[in-house]
Amino acid sequence: MNTIGHLINGTIVNDSGRTQDVYNPSTGEVSKQVALASKATVEEAIAAAQAAFPAWRNTPPLKRARVMFRFKELLEQNAEKICQMIGEEHGKIVHDAMGELSRGIENVEYACGVPELLKGEHSKNVGPAIDSWSEFQPLGVVAGITPFNFPAMVPLWMFPMAIACGNTFVLKPSERDPGSTLFIAQLLMEAGLPAGVINVVNGDKEAVDTLLDDARVQAVSFVGSTPIAEYIYSRASANGKRCQALGGAKNHAIVMPDADMDNAVSALTGAAFGSSGERCMALSVAVAVGDAAADALIEKMQAQMQSLKVGAFHDKQNDFGPVITQAHMEKVVGYINSAEKQGAEIVVDGRNPSVPGYEQGFFVGGTLIDRVTPEMLCYREEIFGPVLLVVRVETMQEAMDLIDAHEYGNGTCIFTRDGEAARYFSDNIQVGMVGINVPLPVPVAYHSFGGWKRSLFGDLYAYGPDAVRFYTRRKTVTQRWPSAGVREGAQFAFPS
Amino acid sequence: MNTIGHLINGTIVNDSGRTQDVYNPSTGEVSKQVALASKATVEEAIAAAQAAFPAWRNTPPLKRARVMFRFKELLEQNAEKICQMIGEEHGKIVHDAMGELSRGIENVEYACGVPELLKGEHSKNVGPAIDSWSEFQPLGVVAGITPFNFPAMVPLWMFPMAIACGNTFVLKPSERDPGSTLFIAQLLMEAGLPAGVINVVNGDKEAVDTLLDDARVQAVSFVGSTPIAEYIYSRASANGKRCQALGGAKNHAIVMPDADMDNAVSALTGAAFGSSGERCMALSVAVAVGDAAADALIEKMQAQMQSLKVGAFHDKQNDFGPVITQAHMEKVVGYINSAEKQGAEIVVDGRNPSVPGYEQGFFVGGTLIDRVTPEMLCYREEIFGPVLLVVRVETMQEAMDLIDAHEYGNGTCIFTRDGEAARYFSDNIQVGMVGINVPLPVPVAYHSFGGWKRSLFGDLYAYGPDAVRFYTRRKTVTQRWPSAGVREGAQFAFPS
Amino acid sequence: MNTIGHLINGTIVNDSGRTQDVYNPSTGEVSKQVALASKATVEEAIAAAQAAFPAWRNTPPLKRARVMFRFKELLEQNAEKICQMIGEEHGKIVHDAMGELSRGIENVEYACGVPELLKGEHSKNVGPAIDSWSEFQPLGVVAGITPFNFPAMVPLWMFPMAIACGNTFVLKPSERDPGSTLFIAQLLMEAGLPAGVINVVNGDKEAVDTLLDDARVQAVSFVGSTPIAEYIYSRASANGKRCQALGGAKNHAIVMPDADMDNAVSALTGAAFGSSGERCMALSVAVAVGDAAADALIEKMQAQMQSLKVGAFHDKQNDFGPVITQAHMEKVVGYINSAEKQGAEIVVDGRNPSVPGYEQGFFVGGTLIDRVTPEMLCYREEIFGPVLLVVRVETMQEAMDLIDAHEYGNGTCIFTRDGEAARYFSDNIQVGMVGINVPLPVPVAYHSFGGWKRSLFGDLYAYGPDAVRFYTRRKTVTQRWPSAGVREGAQFAFPS
Amino acid sequence: MNTIGHLINGTIVNDSGRTQDVYNPSTGEVSKQVALASKATVEEAIAAAQAAFPAWRNTPPLKRARVMFRFKELLEQNAEKICQMIGEEHGKIVHDAMGELSRGIENVEYACGVPELLKGEHSKNVGPAIDSWSEFQPLGVVAGITPFNFPAMVPLWMFPMAIACGNTFVLKPSERDPGSTLFIAQLLMEAGLPAGVINVVNGDKEAVDTLLDDARVQAVSFVGSTPIAEYIYSRASANGKRCQALGGAKNHAIVMPDADMDNAVSALTGAAFGSSGERCMALSVAVAVGDAAADALIEKMQAQMQSLKVGAFHDKQNDFGPVITQAHMEKVVGYINSAEKQGAEIVVDGRNPSVPGYEQGFFVGGTLIDRVTPEMLCYREEIFGPVLLVVRVETMQEAMDLIDAHEYGNGTCIFTRDGEAARYFSDNIQVGMVGINVPLPVPVAYHSFGGWKRSLFGDLYAYGPDAVRFYTRRKTVTQRWPSAGVREGAQFAFPS
Repeated sequence: MNTIGHLINGTIVNDSGRTQDVYNPSTGEVSKQVALASKATVEEAIAAAQAAFPAWRNTPPLKRARVMFRFKELLEQNAEKICQMIGEEHGKIVHDAMGELSRGIENVEYACGVPELLKGEHSKNVGPAIDSWSEFQPLGVVAGITPFNFPAMVPLWMFPMAIACGNTFVLKPSERDPGSTLFIAQLLMEAGLPAGVINVVNGDKEAVDTLLDDARVQAVSFVGSTPIAEYIYSRASANGKRCQALGGAKNHAIVMPDADMDNAVSALTGAAFGSSGERCMALSVAVAVGDAAADALIEKMQAQMQSLKVGAFHDKQNDFGPVITQAHMEKVVGYINSAEKQGAEIVVDGRNPSVPGYEQGFFVGGTLIDRVTPEMLCYREEIFGPVLLVVRVETMQEAMDLIDAHEYGNGTCIFTRDGEAARYFSDNIQVGMVGINVPLPVPVAYHSFGGWKRSLFGDLYAYGPDAVRFYTRRKTVTQRWPSAGVREGAQFAFPS
Repeated sequence: MNTIGHLINGTIVNDSGRTQDVYNPSTGEVSKQVALASKATVEEAIAAAQAAFPAWRNTPPLKRARVMFRFKELLEQNAEKICQMIGEEHGKIVHDAMGELSRGIENVEYACGVPELLKGEHSKNVGPAIDSWSEFQPLGVVAGITPFNFPAMVPLWMFPMAIACGNTFVLKPSERDPGSTLFIAQLLMEAGLPAGVINVVNGDKEAVDTLLDDARVQAVSFVGSTPIAEYIYSRASANGKRCQALGGAKNHAIVMPDADMDNAVSALTGAAFGSSGERCMALSVAVAVGDAAADALIEKMQAQMQSLKVGAFHDKQNDFGPVITQAHMEKVVGYINSAEKQGAEIVVDGRNPSVPGYEQGFFVGGTLIDRVTPEMLCYREEIFGPVLLVVRVETMQEAMDLIDAHEYGNGTCIFTRDGEAARYFSDNIQVGMVGINVPLPVPVAYHSFGGWKRSLFGDLYAYGPDAVRFYTRRKTVTQRWPSAGVREGAQFAFPS
Repeated sequence: MNTIGHLINGTIVNDSGRTQDVYNPSTGEVSKQVALASKATVEEAIAAAQAAFPAWRNTPPLKRARVMFRFKELLEQNAEKICQMIGEEHGKIVHDAMGELSRGIENVEYACGVPELLKGEHSKNVGPAIDSWSEFQPLGVVAGITPFNFPAMVPLWMFPMAIACGNTFVLKPSERDPGSTLFIAQLLMEAGLPAGVINVVNGDKEAVDTLLDDARVQAVSFVGSTPIAEYIYSRASANGKRCQALGGAKNHAIVMPDADMDNAVSALTGAAFGSSGERCMALSVAVAVGDAAADALIEKMQAQMQSLKVGAFHDKQNDFGPVITQAHMEKVVGYINSAEKQGAEIVVDGRNPSVPGYEQGFFVGGTLIDRVTPEMLCYREEIFGPVLLVVRVETMQEAMDLIDAHEYGNGTCIFTRDGEAARYFSDNIQVGMVGINVPLPVPVAYHSFGGWKRSLFGDLYAYGPDAVRFYTRRKTVTQRWPSAGVREGAQFAFPS
Repeated sequence: MNTIGHLINGTIVNDSGRTQDVYNPSTGEVSKQVALASKATVEEAIAAAQAAFPAWRNTPPLKRARVMFRFKELLEQNAEKICQMIGEEHGKIVHDAMGELSRGIENVEYACGVPELLKGEHSKNVGPAIDSWSEFQPLGVVAGITPFNFPAMVPLWMFPMAIACGNTFVLKPSERDPGSTLFIAQLLMEAGLPAGVINVVNGDKEAVDTLLDDARVQAVSFVGSTPIAEYIYSRASANGKRCQALGGAKNHAIVMPDADMDNAVSALTGAAFGSSGERCMALSVAVAVGDAAADALIEKMQAQMQSLKVGAFHDKQNDFGPVITQAHMEKVVGYINSAEKQGAEIVVDGRNPSVPGYEQGFFVGGTLIDRVTPEMLCYREEIFGPVLLVVRVETMQEAMDLIDAHEYGNGTCIFTRDGEAARYFSDNIQVGMVGINVPLPVPVAYHSFGGWKRSLFGDLYAYGPDAVRFYTRRKTVTQRWPSAGVREGAQFAFPS
């Protein structure tokens, strides 16, 4: 059986040691193994990155950007293959994988503009004949630790910009679906990146802790669940590193009485069930303002969900695929069970869906639960499955209070036609990414991604302009040239 | 014989009317004809651009940028062919054409970042619950009029960014070497640009005046000689258009006594004779501070120039090729004659160079003239040929006064090791582009190009960040939403 | 009788020659004289500015900003006096003058931030060990020519930023109400500005043409009517100067069927009649979509206008004062007469208002005219008086087509609650300053002011970020230091 | 005896509990007491800040800026009094205190520009008819913890910008010299700040830990020693807060053989001994390249130091005053003793200086130590006293290696005339603030302050543009308006 290894200093290598199974979630079968890097292997990757840094740092930004231009071309040429690899290990349908990859490529496109983005500020005459300017210099070796749910996109949030800024990189992708990530890194090598500038180590906690503790690693970017994000942030910080750690979410959509209900239902369906709800920007709670809105929403959702298709990744007719593991499938079903027990109303029940030919796959069907209340377990925690909860409230303020009371603050959305409602909502809600009639308000690649409250630890966000600041260190130079140099000297020397 | 036509609304068309000869300057022979657009033909191009504008304006910037990404790929794939076309019509050596094209492609790369560059400024609470933001909207139809000396690069300074910003474009390239320009525009169509967004009309004053007078043309970018720049600027302005018009130059290099003389000589050689000096950034005057510096400079230049090779465009062993026309060749020789007559010393004489097999080509050899003074005709006017003048002064201040007294202020340079001299020079000199030990201080594509004094008319420069501003119009929106809409309404409607 | 002179090189001077009457429009009496500068006087002012430039240019921006901080304090301390002076010569009510002055002071506040605003862009390694940066250097002597309707505010749009950027300034204010402008310039001197940095010349066409033609003047800012703006722009441009020339307006408000009508009426009243409509941002046309909206608007406007008070400037109970001259009063009345003749309906008639005790004042009362059509003279031209026209249309598109068909494109506004209508309007309308439920969408001082179409000639707008660019010239420096200097030398010299 | 209390919710309050002595270091006497806040007192301050936040956040930035304009005026009016207070408690000479205060006021001036600085990025058409923009919203309650050495300046680095951005603030100044800090906060109240927006608590570790642990505090800015900075950073981070913690320094100046030695000596004298060396930007090590440079430096320093005067704070003839405490004085003397023991050469000995009339003051005189080596205790640790060490090396690379090997990376400087040496140094040195012939390269207020390596923990620096980002949280809004609203509705309703 194939074992996925590491990319260190331009070469694919394998640990002699531990490995872990990689599943095909659509079939429920183990399809390959992944090597789990030892501390020594990770240190080897760090050393390669450290060694590659001085030359890469001195490569003009324009030349670094050109590697990204070529990388974009290669990603486009290999898009189908990458999506196939994502589907096999993660389970998402090919069109969904293509969407993920496209958002990833947008980050490569943004990194192509790095000569513009790295401009510092130049001030003439901060004092008499004294000038001062800032430079944004690369940090050195930086690390990225990424989750299973976007094996292509989330790494592409990180390393293209980090590398374009002049850093060298060690990536630790999810050990559950490491194949496409490694392949993408190989494409970057093919685009002309010098050996050692990008390194990939597969692994588990041992690898992670090595990255967090090694003094040569200057910064850590993390995306995953909130408890791990918190761990990463405090350990990296205690080691004096800069760190940005993005965690979990419970994204609410407010449905106002004046909303265009057909539009809202269509938007919610994609946002709640796409990728089986395994997205930190999935919309998992709809808050209907007034029973009239709630009833209309439930009725239309129920109708729409009749045509929702769950199934294997390779069939484009399917709307979404399996969840990532058997254990996760059971956890999602457990949340639905608990909702039922706690008195919510299961309007559409996705437990035990029929997926002929894929009986061992990790499938949960689209599930709609009405009359959820804030005390319920299914409301308090992130389900990360194809489950949409409906909470009924009587005023918009009540809806906003609910959102602000939740521990997470990643994304949120309002459906309305009213300019005032939209402005009040976006101004006051304690959430980092806000949609107005946009159900998945993921910022485009030239803005930055980040939640509030316990959805993000750190002060600079992922990708976009913030990434440029996260992956560089400010240096301020103040310059004064003493007089009586060659200029006046020349004058003294050659009097007329 | 082949006749080069126009590109209008996605199709190559020809006027039935006037044509003009296009020469191969290396052989002195007419190689093809170029159609000269009538007023009606130009108006047809403007109409096509006008019709294409609404849809292109509404195309998201990210999608417009993607056309530029593909355009870059096509330019790279067709680089050799383009350079061949440039060489045949302009005469510059292939490696020099490749340099030109590369600088042009850098502008396409910069235009790929247009989603970032178009960002407006958003201000929350400019008053209580009042927000305001700026948008940089495209202008509509814009025109570019470009010179013979950079048939690929100068058009690429203009239309990629103009189009990426959402405008549609009518380009009038030089009628002396129109082939490569037209081909490049065709590549842009091939990259996926909708018909009518880029149009090319070949022509002369009739075409130019039509563009300047037509009310549908919102803005004009021009690069050429100063008298024409002045004409374009005042006529376009009188018609209420925005205009940027770049003119001539007489670029001086100061050689200080402490300069690294080998470095200076090597730099001057390329900057004075490259492309036969037919560059608005060519270094045409060296100002030596002190006779010691002057003598050393002359001696080393003379030695270096022994290996300078002038010849036909296709031979990479040649350093530079012919000038553009017979008439221009005679004009350059006339300047050398006048210098001789006015008492300057012809150190290296490039008149009547021997270019075996190309006796009818328009060749002038590299020429070095010492002891030039400001009164001489060769000093006062732009020669635009492979001629380097040396002026001797006794102090750095005297050198700077010379530069500031000249009508042009395009580029300049100082050779020194001394921080103070460099800072004083760059701070005070009345020139737009300043080099410190850099002989051709052409700003990179992510900065902007423009001279001072009579080298540029207008306030925004060519390419880089200024181009984004030149090709867009600011719109400022101020927004307040009245209360008592659905938000409070919902509260009144559903009391608890 | 008092004669208002000029401020040249820090001293108040008078021409021996021509003068012109300055009226008190509330009483209709001549209250003082203003000197009209001869060509020689203007040239003296230019010479003073030219002489003051080198030292002021070299004064660090932080120190220049500190003069603006003190200037702001002095303006606040003298606010009542300034408003009194404005009222006497212009006629606007004290509270309106205070509003004008406040907006002017906001521009001084913005100029206090000039060290931030002047930052250039610094790029490391544009090539190997080559750096490049941009500097925004002052132009030299710049001129401002300002209108009667905002004698304090419009000059404050210009000279604080121009001077903070390091330029020296010659201001030619309106000869109709020059008193407050001159006093404000004196306060700037008191704030610590060196002599010659600000100069004020009063005058007429002779003064204007001198400024437009003198080669030492680098740039001209103008605000006034469109025919003069066009003259200024083409003459300054023909002289090779940079120029921004702001002209007239005909600002429309669309009143949608869903608008909050009380809010709209209250907003329209202030925006149409404030300062007697003598504002280039006055709302002079209301376009009601649907007869229901039109009827409601007319009814509520009529009611509201019953309490509108026109009268002398010093009485704060008045809503607005006289227009600027007898001739202008007659012109405004002429427009109302023509509307009546052409078939419009005079709903509220402001002709011959009763203003007891001020029978010779230049008063026109608030006037509301319904059923205006685009062919009428009152619609086609700028009235610049307290006259609100109502045009009735049946669709929002029809309303937008009307606006886009007008020659002016300064400001516009929509009254609606609907997010989609607002966004469609602001995106597509061919107007530079757009309000959404904001009747006077004058950008705040940290944005920039400018209309589209024939309301502005030039590419950079007034005040805000654009003013920084207008009043500076980009210089780009590219720097490479040759090796084998003291660093390596020291190594050779002191081997271990 | 006077006891300095706290400022909470606009009122000066005192704890009933613990107090600590405040000394006059010039006399060695206890001059007053300072209250040490209990946990409850600090929580009261946090609660006041929390309560004041909603209204302050909604105050338009322009109005918040105006409080800063008035604050600046009050600081200037009270400058002498503040400097007197600083001198009494800290010991620095009045002119030095004035320098400190001026740099502090520059930060207030920068905060006056907050409407400009808070601008977000607005993108039109991120998708079809979808817009997106970023807002930089205030965090809520933020805390500052500041050191004894700049009781006015360092707090002014923090709270003006934090408050101008819309936050409310709890400041814990040094308990050793709290008087001027409290007075400055009272001036801010007098400038019109609402109660609760600024709060000051005096205290020790109990107060600090309360601020670090309270969940309502969103961010912590700290300046002090590295061990405490590390503690603050890891504890605040473990609590999920954003934190910037600035620590210690050991700033080296390289003196090149080509340096202007008189200029270098004069610069070093001020930078090494000013404020008794109790500055994190003090230059404490001179690295001379070559023995010739070293010998010249020592000789000229020795001569210059003969006129250096240490003494009481109020006498402007003195160059510097006492150190902060008896214990610190003994520690500084201990470092000198250790240098002597470890073989360095005490060229000028400042131990036991004679300060007649102030025999109990905490004085150390200016001390110059030659032939220091990297192993010595005096080199490895931050002395924070008026002691300049000289290290002799043979090459510039050796000098740079020394600097890069030190644990701190705050500031550094090179003295040279050579452009290449300066560029190589500033590019490669691992230090955050670099001077070229500028001995104290403290960035001006419109740039940002921060060191590298163990001199700063966090990713955003103090004051300047970084402070705006540190004190705000990015929110990204994505907006799409569904069609079929009032715009098209109106069209349907009123067909022609």
